Amino acid sequence: MKRVLLTVAYDGTSYHGFQIQKNAPTIAGELLRAIRDLTGCDAELLGGSRTDAGVHAFSNKTAFDTDSPIEADKFAYALNARLPEDIRVTASREVPGDFHPLRVPSRKTYEYRILNTEFPDPVSRLHTVHVHVPLDDARMDEASKYLLGEHDFASFCSAGSQVESTVRTIHEIGVSKEPLRDRSGRMRRDGKRSPSGLLIIRVTGNGFLYNMVRIIAGTLMEVGRGAMEPEEVLAVLEAHDRDKAGPTAPPQGLFLVRYEFTDIGNPLEKGAPF
Amino acid sequence: MKRVLLTVAYDGTSYHGFQIQKNAPTIAGELLRAIRDLTGCDAELLGGSRTDAGVHAFSNKTAFDTDSPIEADKFAYALNARLPEDIRVTASREVPGDFHPLRVPSRKTYEYRILNTEFPDPVSRLHTVHVHVPLDDARMDEASKYLLGEHDFASFCSAGSQVESTVRTIHEIGVSKEPLRDRSGRMRRDGKRSPSGLLIIRVTGNGFLYNMVRIIAGTLMEVGRGAMEPEEVLAVLEAHDRDKAGPTAPPQGLFLVRYEFTDIGNPLEKGAPF
Repeated sequence: MKRVLLTVAYDGTSYHGFQIQKNAPTIAGELLRAIRDLTGCDAELLGGSRTDAGVHAFSNKTAFDTDSPIEADKFAYALNARLPEDIRVTASREVPGDFHPLRVPSRKTYEYRILNTEFPDPVSRLHTVHVHVPLDDARMDEASKYLLGEHDFASFCSAGSQVESTVRTIHEIGVSKEPLRDRSGRMRRDGKRSPSGLLIIRVTGNGFLYNMVRIIAGTLMEVGRGAMEPEEVLAVLEAHDRDKAGPTAPPQGLFLVRYEFTDIGNPLEKGAPF
Repeated sequence: MKRVLLTVAYDGTSYHGFQIQKNAPTIAGELLRAIRDLTGCDAELLGGSRTDAGVHAFSNKTAFDTDSPIEADKFAYALNARLPEDIRVTASREVPGDFHPLRVPSRKTYEYRILNTEFPDPVSRLHTVHVHVPLDDARMDEASKYLLGEHDFASFCSAGSQVESTVRTIHEIGVSKEPLRDRSGRMRRDGKRSPSGLLIIRVTGNGFLYNMVRIIAGTLMEVGRGAMEPEEVLAVLEAHDRDKAGPTAPPQGLFLVRYEFTDIGNPLEKGAPF
């Protein structure tokens, strides 16, 4: 018996999230089907970030036990041959039999991507959220810094969450704007930043509450369009009241880009597609 | 009666190409349906680059005549309200009644996008071609320069094309590699270019033969993986024989990124999403 840790990338568009559900396609459901096809045995997934329907991942992590003679690092290739194209196992490695993803300290990094342009873009429509109102990324970045550190993030947690504590630590957070390469081939003559661009909210923490990143994104977008002042984010945080924060931003802009276990090194060293 | 020129962006994944077909969804078919919904009248599309099934566009151009009182520049918004999300009209403008897209000099720019990584990426799988064998972008760029200028491109034209002449002019061509931002958040410590990346073949010309860009891409990929020497591209060009060139690269990596009419200015000045 060995325990295998998988790094999984997926396009969440066609799935009802990571967590297995009856009668609905899920990432976990596809992984378990592929493991059964490959090993002939049912398995159970240990951990795995429970991304919502429509949310994407470049690097989710989940583990399973198997008696298969297949070498742990060969599972990535063998499972990919049995998975749909919108799910790829980008790394597989053996971990100690007592390793459980949910019982070790970890750091996750999420990105929320906002296409801030006059017209929506058909090509990226399922992997960004389109906002046509100009957003001020500098104001959003300033506002985001109030969330750094350890806080009670109750204002940024959707109802229905069962967690004991709403205290989490955000290690890094910031908002950047990537001026979009003019798809028609023309850069602005004056060399100035294009008024439109791809805004990326990037946040790293030791754990996140239900919808926490999407509520942070919805709140920072309020600041970006001028409906809130950056310093108001501090009042929202201190209110411990979900109703004080902005709306929950749509799922398709959210990506789990990094998931590390801080005590076993980074299983991502090899294999990640990017 | 006025003539309206549309700039159209689309994700070609779900369509059998631009050109209208019976019993198959096409970009032109959707545009004509939306125009009929809006104006109450059937229209005919004049011109429009005939992109193949699965090929994408940030900037295709087509025109139609209408008696509608709607101002020409309002058509973009009105048609978008009646089009599927994977097709967007990004600009609309009135043009002279004797303007026909196929009867004026034009320049088109295509990009062919190759994801050169160990594992395919679920998120970009429909908008890039994945190649796991390392491709040498410098060799590909060197090879591409043999195609600059006016030549008989018969070696780069698929059978079944009805054109009178296979002579075309390539104004600009080159191959670049965008080091991919490490999606797991880690850049290479040594600061070197990542061995993997997004290769972009960008070519501008006065017109392109059937499958010409995809055959150029397939040929340059042969050079990139070492199966051909850069200078052999000259021999391929001079052979005027399709069998001497590389394979036709798959459609999903191809984007029509710019389409300009050189005698009426660039209708894209406003409205393009990027």
